[in-house]
Amino acid sequence: MTAKNITAAVLVIGDEILSGRTKDKNIGYIAEYLTNIGIDLKEVRVVPDDEDEIVPALNALRKRYSYVFTTGGIGPTHDDITADCVAKAFGVELYEDPRIIAMMLERLKPEDLNEMRRRMARIPVGAEHVKNTISKVPGFRIENVIVMAGVPAIMQAMLDDVAPKLTTGARMLSRTIDAMGIPEGTYAADLGQIAKEHPSVIIGSYPQFGEGRFHNQIVVRSKEASTMDAAVSAVEAMLRDLAAKKG
Amino acid sequence: MTAKNITAAVLVIGDEILSGRTKDKNIGYIAEYLTNIGIDLKEVRVVPDDEDEIVPALNALRKRYSYVFTTGGIGPTHDDITADCVAKAFGVELYEDPRIIAMMLERLKPEDLNEMRRRMARIPVGAEHVKNTISKVPGFRIENVIVMAGVPAIMQAMLDDVAPKLTTGARMLSRTIDAMGIPEGTYAADLGQIAKEHPSVIIGSYPQFGEGRFHNQIVVRSKEASTMDAAVSAVEAMLRDLAAKKG
Repeated sequence: MTAKNITAAVLVIGDEILSGRTKDKNIGYIAEYLTNIGIDLKEVRVVPDDEDEIVPALNALRKRYSYVFTTGGIGPTHDDITADCVAKAFGVELYEDPRIIAMMLERLKPEDLNEMRRRMARIPVGAEHVKNTISKVPGFRIENVIVMAGVPAIMQAMLDDVAPKLTTGARMLSRTIDAMGIPEGTYAADLGQIAKEHPSVIIGSYPQFGEGRFHNQIVVRSKEASTMDAAVSAVEAMLRDLAAKKG
Repeated sequence: MTAKNITAAVLVIGDEILSGRTKDKNIGYIAEYLTNIGIDLKEVRVVPDDEDEIVPALNALRKRYSYVFTTGGIGPTHDDITADCVAKAFGVELYEDPRIIAMMLERLKPEDLNEMRRRMARIPVGAEHVKNTISKVPGFRIENVIVMAGVPAIMQAMLDDVAPKLTTGARMLSRTIDAMGIPEGTYAADLGQIAKEHPSVIIGSYPQFGEGRFHNQIVVRSKEASTMDAAVSAVEAMLRDLAAKKG
């Protein structure tokens, strides 16, 4: 029996990523995390702090994938508009959640709970909290959309909270094979043939460049150990043959 | 006179980024580079090595922005399908460019120029080369789409080659102001007011989290030095006032 594929997209919200001022650290982290729990990340988009960009992107992604993870834009300042945009995308209202106000009052004096801080207590009708063990104020989840902070430490804590509640599929297994110094162009034909003969396996070739030359790795991925192992054996045999010819 | 805004999108092509195996280093680099030369990066998408994903994404982005920069998928192996997808998106044919074959023969023996390596010499009809000073085989540009390698060192060389040929707009100027330890929630209302009073300026507040607390920075961006300076002065005066109240 093959488990249903569970898919996801990440929507990164933030002018600071697009201007290059802040280098994103969340995409790679979420990608690896989801792969490890059996959710296939299929798309990432980065959009500015602009309602006209966020709402259509969110609507496109949430209809297409099992889950959408957003990062950024949930702080107290005027440029934090993610909650408003998510509510708009779902056609629901935001409300001030008294449970979040209570959490904020654990760390703030009542006179410091100003109007802008109260903005962080607003969540869409129908949303549930995503716990923030770092700075208390939670993210939220509404249907298949999970709204998280942009600050990496907080985003990571939120992902740990929400992950056990998600439906996951079969985990993608992966094996990396060093290409033994053989150039990509030398093994490309044989590798393409192996990919054709193992259609349920995903085979990629990834060059890295360093010290003036390429170092290639071949990655074999599958949701089934037996099919992956068969393809790995074929790749290893191919590399041995090519190395012998060369030598 | 205000220069026309020149916009761009980045399309990252690669299963390895979505699986988390490879951590992208190109998005942040391109973002900063384009900002510095007066091109506004407005959107980034990451898609898998799948024609049905690449072609529609490329068509959506190239119609919407002045330029689209793609990274990845231009090597010799079966999973490198970017050139095919770009040709399909533009409805043109790929052809084997004898100038690229000649470049390859500078580094390869004729008997090593196999069918898969020849794939790298294919460019769409109407495309021009984007020079690769690292490993010779060029990227290409067709209309407003610039197709680059995924390997960072090669991508960076290609960007250096193509950048002087692009139309650029007014450079976005930027000033970062340290929030002097004042919490975001304390300055959020005043900062929002300043943003309202300086509508041509983009003001963002960016928390970082480290050693158990937040360190906030306020970033003021504008294409005009005078309007930026006015907003920066207002932000600095606000922070001084708040710091005085606190002290």
